[in-house]
Amino acid sequence: MRAYEIIKKKRDGGSLDKEEFQFLIRGYLSGEIPDYQMSAFLMAAFLRGLNEEETVSLTDVMLRTGEVLDLTEMDAPRIDKHSTGGVGDKVSIILAPLVAAAGVAVPMISGRGLGHTGGTLDKLESIPGFRTEMSIIDFRHTLWEGGAAIMGQTDDIAPADRRLYALRDVTATVESIPLIASSIMSKKLAEGLNGLVLDVKVGSGAFMKTMEDAEALASVLTNTGNSFGVRTVAVITDMDEPLGRAVGNALEIKECINVLKGRSDNDLLEVTLTLGAWMLYIADWVQRAVDNPGTEVPRITSVDEVALADKRAELEELIETGKALESFVDFVERQGGNPEIIANPGLLPGASQMKQVQVSKSGYIQRVDAEKVGTASMLLGAGRQRLEDGIDHAAGIMLNRKSGAAVQAGDTVAVLHYNDDGNLSEALRLVGEAFEIGPEPPGPRRMIRKVVL
Amino acid sequence: MRAYEIIKKKRDGGSLDKEEFQFLIRGYLSGEIPDYQMSAFLMAAFLRGLNEEETVSLTDVMLRTGEVLDLTEMDAPRIDKHSTGGVGDKVSIILAPLVAAAGVAVPMISGRGLGHTGGTLDKLESIPGFRTEMSIIDFRHTLWEGGAAIMGQTDDIAPADRRLYALRDVTATVESIPLIASSIMSKKLAEGLNGLVLDVKVGSGAFMKTMEDAEALASVLTNTGNSFGVRTVAVITDMDEPLGRAVGNALEIKECINVLKGRSDNDLLEVTLTLGAWMLYIADWVQRAVDNPGTEVPRITSVDEVALADKRAELEELIETGKALESFVDFVERQGGNPEIIANPGLLPGASQMKQVQVSKSGYIQRVDAEKVGTASMLLGAGRQRLEDGIDHAAGIMLNRKSGAAVQAGDTVAVLHYNDDGNLSEALRLVGEAFEIGPEPPGPRRMIRKVVL
Repeated sequence: MRAYEIIKKKRDGGSLDKEEFQFLIRGYLSGEIPDYQMSAFLMAAFLRGLNEEETVSLTDVMLRTGEVLDLTEMDAPRIDKHSTGGVGDKVSIILAPLVAAAGVAVPMISGRGLGHTGGTLDKLESIPGFRTEMSIIDFRHTLWEGGAAIMGQTDDIAPADRRLYALRDVTATVESIPLIASSIMSKKLAEGLNGLVLDVKVGSGAFMKTMEDAEALASVLTNTGNSFGVRTVAVITDMDEPLGRAVGNALEIKECINVLKGRSDNDLLEVTLTLGAWMLYIADWVQRAVDNPGTEVPRITSVDEVALADKRAELEELIETGKALESFVDFVERQGGNPEIIANPGLLPGASQMKQVQVSKSGYIQRVDAEKVGTASMLLGAGRQRLEDGIDHAAGIMLNRKSGAAVQAGDTVAVLHYNDDGNLSEALRLVGEAFEIGPEPPGPRRMIRKVVL
Repeated sequence: MRAYEIIKKKRDGGSLDKEEFQFLIRGYLSGEIPDYQMSAFLMAAFLRGLNEEETVSLTDVMLRTGEVLDLTEMDAPRIDKHSTGGVGDKVSIILAPLVAAAGVAVPMISGRGLGHTGGTLDKLESIPGFRTEMSIIDFRHTLWEGGAAIMGQTDDIAPADRRLYALRDVTATVESIPLIASSIMSKKLAEGLNGLVLDVKVGSGAFMKTMEDAEALASVLTNTGNSFGVRTVAVITDMDEPLGRAVGNALEIKECINVLKGRSDNDLLEVTLTLGAWMLYIADWVQRAVDNPGTEVPRITSVDEVALADKRAELEELIETGKALESFVDFVERQGGNPEIIANPGLLPGASQMKQVQVSKSGYIQRVDAEKVGTASMLLGAGRQRLEDGIDHAAGIMLNRKSGAAVQAGDTVAVLHYNDDGNLSEALRLVGEAFEIGPEPPGPRRMIRKVVL
């Protein structure tokens, strides 16, 4: 087998088998196949595509380049939630302790923010003392004790993906549905899961700008997960506008605390409860098979809407009774964070300066463009342009008004939080532009666009 | 400007302008753009294509990375002939002195053989003492004195092409018509030409296997040449079967001497005279403009068939009168070769061993597969698998019979010449398979398939 022949086969539209992916990926990791052959292959794969069987093979090969957790010793079903990334998306931070409070184990290996999108690890690290770097042994221990654990990707998990992603990032081969799917799934399938809920974001702030692309990605992701025996459901959710009101790390942690305290009734809660209900639903589905040893867990092909609504109600009750908040306190403490921030969010990093943004005309907010707000937040220091950049945990943007709200010219609609005013004028311009005002109220915003089984 | 954006633009099917090619090619040569970005770009260009304007821009940029000869001080028009490569293609070696004898300057920068195709430089170097490595000053001097000079590519000529070709060779991005065209033309346009005749080979032994591909390449090549003011004509010729009877370096030189001595009436002579007549035709065309200073040389859009036939007759006369052979003696001598080989071809390297190949059934030879004969010749030592391999000038294959001939089972149809029998059995098998025998005579072989203006 030669790398040249594999590149040529994909270039000419052929399908590769698992042995060919194995040769390519392992050869690349060992240094026998150079970057320039891999990047030619990636461009051929980008333009020619990979079919579902190839995507599963590539995922499998990448998964096996690293450690795969075996958590079968746990009694509770292990269910994770993964988002394809958006602006103001702090759902994982609420969901992990919330779902753990319902008796489901949540082993989450998470990422950092890049460009206009934020990352769960960065948000958590704004909590003083919070550790996201840990060994797999510590991760397992934390999970065992508390039911939820969030850690950063290590070199032990799917190392091929890390190498490939770095190469894709500089060769314009990122935005390929099968390559995105195999990258996500090779990491998620290493978590020793029974089930997985994927939050596929669609809209201006998301990777997938159209429903067509989002549905295609959702379909490849669920098929790949299910073909590995992990019961996988994808929920396509709106990312035309930031999720919730806070964008920026410490600001988002404060919003998470508010949600867990029951002080939220917006889009963020809607997405959180929907995804959480699906996690519990899959956990039950899996548990039924565990309770009947010898039976294989079947793929979910239809939904019991009543059971799903019950799961949502269960999560709402955990919030109302304060059990979710208690679980969050435990979670923060177990990962080394200062639990005092929950009673006293003022202990979180705060910015030295703030600037209000006013709208210049009256009317109804049609939309608050997610990509513009995300980019502005990054420019204020809350995110990074390149992975090696540092970030300012205190910086970010609070949205006072969102789509549907009636505004008068001069109303304050957002507040910028920052310590460094180097890019302030550019950030102000972007946030100003993000607010689209029209004479009529917009149609209702549908947060949950589609569920793909 | 960023390499990433240029790759992305081509990936998405966009057209690049000259500044973008300049940024890419110069950045690559300077080391600022790494191999892995260039190979991703090449695969995108391979799959998305380059339009004619882009091909001209890329050619121009590659051309300007090196030296461009200015030969305007010469009185004679400068016309070159270039072949896209085939088996037994020794036409340049006959044409350079022949056309020079007609008063046209032939500045030829030529290449080495690779795979099943031979190279003019290798063939010439089988003449004891013959030098193909020379400085541009020596090249100019030789040309000035003798009217014809053939040298190898130097690092001074289109260095970007050499770097790019090496990368394409290992990333499955060679067989792209615009990339092939820009590679050929960036070297040819450095020769300070007024005119160029391209021999685009089509068939099993050629790069272009179909007429459709050959016509597409011919069209891009002529448009590129003409857009640089070099009057360019492409002739598509048959390469389903080796050209002439000799394949292998010293064997081919002997065949060239025979042709120049007037002892040839086969396909080789037909192609040589056709291409040569076009060289003289273009020389006249160009001369007419030179004789009327201030007029630009127009592109050739139609052919004066009578004038073209006159040119062919002129070449035939140069052979008959021995002037072509005299010119060849001068040419060999000026480049350091031993001119005695012309009177006594036995001075050329000869192989220590020979093996006859017989056909196993009776009938008519339908075809002698060029690729198989070329590969067999390479295996006997006459060619190289990789550019760094050495070659045996004495090795090769003589074809006693070609398509159309009637044969009886047991007739000797070819003779293998070799010093090393390491791959003899494989070479024998290939040559045996190359002879396709059928019960009826095949249709006549049309050597000249099409002329593209």
